[in-house]
Amino acid sequence: MADVLVVFTPSGLRTTVPEGAAILDAARKIGVDLDSICAGRGICGRCQVEVGSVAGIDDRADRLSARSETETAYRGRKPLVDGRRLACAARAVADVVIEVPADSMVHKQVIRKRPEIDNLPIDPVVRLVYVEVEAATLDGVPGDAERLATALADQWDMVDIDISPTTLRDLQPALRAGDHAVTLAIRDATSIVAVWPGFRDVVFGVAFDIGSTTIAAHLCNLVTGDVLASSGAMNPQIRFGEDLMSRVSYVMMNPDGGVERLTEAVRLAADELIGSLTAEAGIERSDILEVVAVGNPIMHHLLLGIDPTPLGTAPFALATARSIEMDAAAIGLVVHPEARLYTLPLIAGHVGADTTAAILSETPYRSDDIQLLVDVGTNAEIVLGNRSRLVAASSPTGPAFEGAQISSGQRAAPGAIERVRIDPETLDVRFSVIGCEPWSDGADFDDAIRSVGISGICGSGIIEAVAQLMLAGVVSSDGVIVDSDRSDRIVRDGRTRSFVLYRDSDTEIKVTQNDVRAIQLAKAALYAGIRLLMDHFGSDHVDQIRLAGAFGAHIDPAHAVALGMIPDCDIERISAAGNAAGTGAMIALLSGEARREIEAVAARVEKIETATEPRFQEHFVDAMAIPHRTAEYPHLSKVMTLPPRSATIRPPRGRRQRTTRSEHGQT
Amino acid sequence: MADVLVVFTPSGLRTTVPEGAAILDAARKIGVDLDSICAGRGICGRCQVEVGSVAGIDDRADRLSARSETETAYRGRKPLVDGRRLACAARAVADVVIEVPADSMVHKQVIRKRPEIDNLPIDPVVRLVYVEVEAATLDGVPGDAERLATALADQWDMVDIDISPTTLRDLQPALRAGDHAVTLAIRDATSIVAVWPGFRDVVFGVAFDIGSTTIAAHLCNLVTGDVLASSGAMNPQIRFGEDLMSRVSYVMMNPDGGVERLTEAVRLAADELIGSLTAEAGIERSDILEVVAVGNPIMHHLLLGIDPTPLGTAPFALATARSIEMDAAAIGLVVHPEARLYTLPLIAGHVGADTTAAILSETPYRSDDIQLLVDVGTNAEIVLGNRSRLVAASSPTGPAFEGAQISSGQRAAPGAIERVRIDPETLDVRFSVIGCEPWSDGADFDDAIRSVGISGICGSGIIEAVAQLMLAGVVSSDGVIVDSDRSDRIVRDGRTRSFVLYRDSDTEIKVTQNDVRAIQLAKAALYAGIRLLMDHFGSDHVDQIRLAGAFGAHIDPAHAVALGMIPDCDIERISAAGNAAGTGAMIALLSGEARREIEAVAARVEKIETATEPRFQEHFVDAMAIPHRTAEYPHLSKVMTLPPRSATIRPPRGRRQRTTRSEHGQT
Repeated sequence: MADVLVVFTPSGLRTTVPEGAAILDAARKIGVDLDSICAGRGICGRCQVEVGSVAGIDDRADRLSARSETETAYRGRKPLVDGRRLACAARAVADVVIEVPADSMVHKQVIRKRPEIDNLPIDPVVRLVYVEVEAATLDGVPGDAERLATALADQWDMVDIDISPTTLRDLQPALRAGDHAVTLAIRDATSIVAVWPGFRDVVFGVAFDIGSTTIAAHLCNLVTGDVLASSGAMNPQIRFGEDLMSRVSYVMMNPDGGVERLTEAVRLAADELIGSLTAEAGIERSDILEVVAVGNPIMHHLLLGIDPTPLGTAPFALATARSIEMDAAAIGLVVHPEARLYTLPLIAGHVGADTTAAILSETPYRSDDIQLLVDVGTNAEIVLGNRSRLVAASSPTGPAFEGAQISSGQRAAPGAIERVRIDPETLDVRFSVIGCEPWSDGADFDDAIRSVGISGICGSGIIEAVAQLMLAGVVSSDGVIVDSDRSDRIVRDGRTRSFVLYRDSDTEIKVTQNDVRAIQLAKAALYAGIRLLMDHFGSDHVDQIRLAGAFGAHIDPAHAVALGMIPDCDIERISAAGNAAGTGAMIALLSGEARREIEAVAARVEKIETATEPRFQEHFVDAMAIPHRTAEYPHLSKVMTLPPRSATIRPPRGRRQRTTRSEHGQT
Repeated sequence: MADVLVVFTPSGLRTTVPEGAAILDAARKIGVDLDSICAGRGICGRCQVEVGSVAGIDDRADRLSARSETETAYRGRKPLVDGRRLACAARAVADVVIEVPADSMVHKQVIRKRPEIDNLPIDPVVRLVYVEVEAATLDGVPGDAERLATALADQWDMVDIDISPTTLRDLQPALRAGDHAVTLAIRDATSIVAVWPGFRDVVFGVAFDIGSTTIAAHLCNLVTGDVLASSGAMNPQIRFGEDLMSRVSYVMMNPDGGVERLTEAVRLAADELIGSLTAEAGIERSDILEVVAVGNPIMHHLLLGIDPTPLGTAPFALATARSIEMDAAAIGLVVHPEARLYTLPLIAGHVGADTTAAILSETPYRSDDIQLLVDVGTNAEIVLGNRSRLVAASSPTGPAFEGAQISSGQRAAPGAIERVRIDPETLDVRFSVIGCEPWSDGADFDDAIRSVGISGICGSGIIEAVAQLMLAGVVSSDGVIVDSDRSDRIVRDGRTRSFVLYRDSDTEIKVTQNDVRAIQLAKAALYAGIRLLMDHFGSDHVDQIRLAGAFGAHIDPAHAVALGMIPDCDIERISAAGNAAGTGAMIALLSGEARREIEAVAARVEKIETATEPRFQEHFVDAMAIPHRTAEYPHLSKVMTLPPRSATIRPPRGRRQRTTRSEHGQT
């Protein structure tokens, strides 16, 4: 029989095979990245290919054997659309170019609509393979596991594969139920971790982002990369302490069982999230074979049951900075008994697995531009660099950016003022409230605000308020609310002054002098940290700024620059990174290569310790001034426009009390 | 400084070092097998050496530096006797020969008094090492685990060592408590599985031999190889079925939870044994870091929670024949959370990990002679071979050798007749009873038997009885109790005859025709199995026979040969192997090398299936005849002597009824 040439695109790999050879066999022979769960039995439908062309070989379909019965009969999850063939059934009858579509590759990239999980690599550590095992005989190999190993070697070229204890327990019943055919889950190409009778093409994983306030979880199909369900819950550790340091204090005050209680609380919450995710997606808990978790160092340690006390005082020693793999059951998750938990590496005592996850999601290590990644929480984790180097630090901003230590401050939750505009001439105020679509001067505001109410001001709101007050000249460059008779919104408050943003019969929301100070200190700390990283990196500018997390989603970049929180940068290139930590966790769930990548990257991130760097203090002092001339910020001046019209302060109907300029004694 | 030559014996390794170099450093440089837990700090005292001599270098002590303060101050577990030096403190000041005593080697052989655990290799998979770790600093490596890794690399040349989740949890508290010095347990030279503050030189393991009737357990010090405590318990699975097949039946009849109940029962019993062993030795359960278990295939599978149903019917497929390593906690053992369970490999559906353990203990694979290893239980596992080949089979003897299916049969327990002598002329009987030192014709018998009583006859007793009856001509070569008026001990029993061994007012212990048949069938099966192995091995003789287990300990070799249970062999070379399976389990507990050895050996043992071998049937039929001329057995005729004098059957005092020849109507 004649030999024919098979050329695969986009890889460009080519081979000569006997006429009539199956395309899948040709692909496996030379290592073409072509998916298959059923090893060429026409069951899984994952090896779909198309006929293509290159110079000298055209794209005529008759270069392959006629559509076989297997293909005609195939009715799997992934229908065979026009032009598609099953590589296991189609045979080369002439020189042929085979196009492997992206969705037929094992290492696929899935493009998603949600921008933060665009272009997700699918290459999970757990892979499914279908095998048919020879029946036992009296004189043959005595162990079914050994016959299974032979089948894996023959049908998949997989050798030296371990078998887990629970798989051993399930193997013989599965072989019986599947009439000697089973689907295996194989981890890291080295270990069989699960077995099911017959053919199966789904297996699941969960990615957790354990925040000190909230825990987010995503349930993913590890074969397709689809996100089946996402859910969130409050971190129940809050009852032991609102912020991180108060939880560490709780542990120190309760040496007998404090760690265990905090650990138990977060593990229970994580397990409950698994319950709601699996219920929502209609799958079994035992279908979950892989779990990834990220979090700041204290959340990370407490999830693993490690006493975080050393993280509460210098030198802030981590138990380990490396990635960890352990049984998911060991942290109390009721999932498949062989499911493993993977935690991403950490960088330093204040720069945790949430930051490395954000780095994995944002990939500054692949960028030619100098990227700045900022994640503002109780403190701010900052990462700066490009493909050649990354430097990272944690800036001691304190919790002001989260609305804490602010007179009317609150979390970013419904009822919180999140955006503020102040007319630099009239000092009129307009604002928007979380949970209420229209701005306070909008036509529908009165109706819309009724169900939400106005309860305080969140981090982004106070930042905008202070920035706007600075632009309006109410706050001086050294952070003082200046005495003014421009508006009765400026009121005396003991020995200092405040600016009234909103007032009704029940509520008064002011920006006090102390609030301005708190924001001033926080922004100076953040800015000084960034400057310190820029010094270490050796650059006086950044090309791109990504603001991660809830804060980053709410903050207006122009105001952040105006206030001097972050360095000047083309406003178009300052953007929200969304839940970068959660996205990074999901990437690590779906890709073993991504894990190796972030492990290598994390190991070379240079950790800068703000506490021992004299330059940090210098930058901090310098950054205390509040910029008030947009001319100093060339990019900013382009976009920092004034609000379109003056605003009245209008409380919601019901609670409403008409508040006009005249009521504030203003003309 | 001049260089000096250091020669180590018995290894013969030699190296040149600068004058004044520590002997331990010289040894480690060239890989001399010299123990140390404290890495040369003079704490552990395990690196003791002596000055020796070879041609050209004499044994003057002044070839080493003077006794140091460290050595003078050393007060550890292993006192420094005269002539001994600590290799970490003693320095070479001239060419010197260093003798490494056996007890200072890592791979030591421990000679014991109990013959069955003679010459035990000590090389456990868990090893202790002491390290001193640098304190954390703000600017240094952020993770304590990473600083620990650096210490391991610097102080022990150990790199790429994993750290277990529980060690991570315990690490920082241990470093704090030990002032940065800790002792680690390292498994397989790859993974840190436990950490303790400061210096420690004990860690423990437990070896289980899970029999269908009893479970035996041994607690060992993994550093010294000492057996601290041994204990046994009934296998509580007996309440679900007396023998193996009835337990498999129980599982088949109870598909919902049958396996789980049997598994739970044996695991609980094993855990209770750990409780009594640790209590006896005065150690903590958490000090146990390694567990080994052996058992027949059904016990093995049930311990692991694997449904043994396939082992109940042809083709008797094992779930796996390989050795298994898993978390000890996964089988419910409350020990150190990182303790692992190791089970030895199996050979076939009827030849289990107890047999491989016996092979490891008896080492026929190292023998030039052809060894036969027989373990008689409900069936008989037999292994035959030498260093070139091993063949193995299970012979379907049934439970007759255990006293089951015998009219007066019982287990080998107090009250059972275990030895029998019958005068070939007078047919007088004398016997001994388990739990009663004197024979029935001894002076002290009446006193001694009172507290024990005579309740039945066990396997070794019935074998001796049948053999003696054969030798006396009462049983013919085709197994018939012949009609005889020689003695009124021969009585009619319906259509057949019986021989009365013992009779008092309450008890009559007879050998019935059915009993003779049962023994005849069992011994034919055993003998046929052995012959089949001899055929496969290609030998018409065996050089040495080892009889394992309780049966082997009670049976008299001469009678076993006389009856035709085992082939003729120099009686001096037939001996009891003791609890070879338990000893093999202990060896695997104490030596990683032994595990690799038995895994390799087990994989090349040739399994012979009696059920499908036509020759087995032929041998079986041939073996039904009962040999009755010692002339056919040249070795046997030398030792098969008659009892020294005639005996009377004497019941114990109290229950006693005088039984003389005349009472039996005999002259």
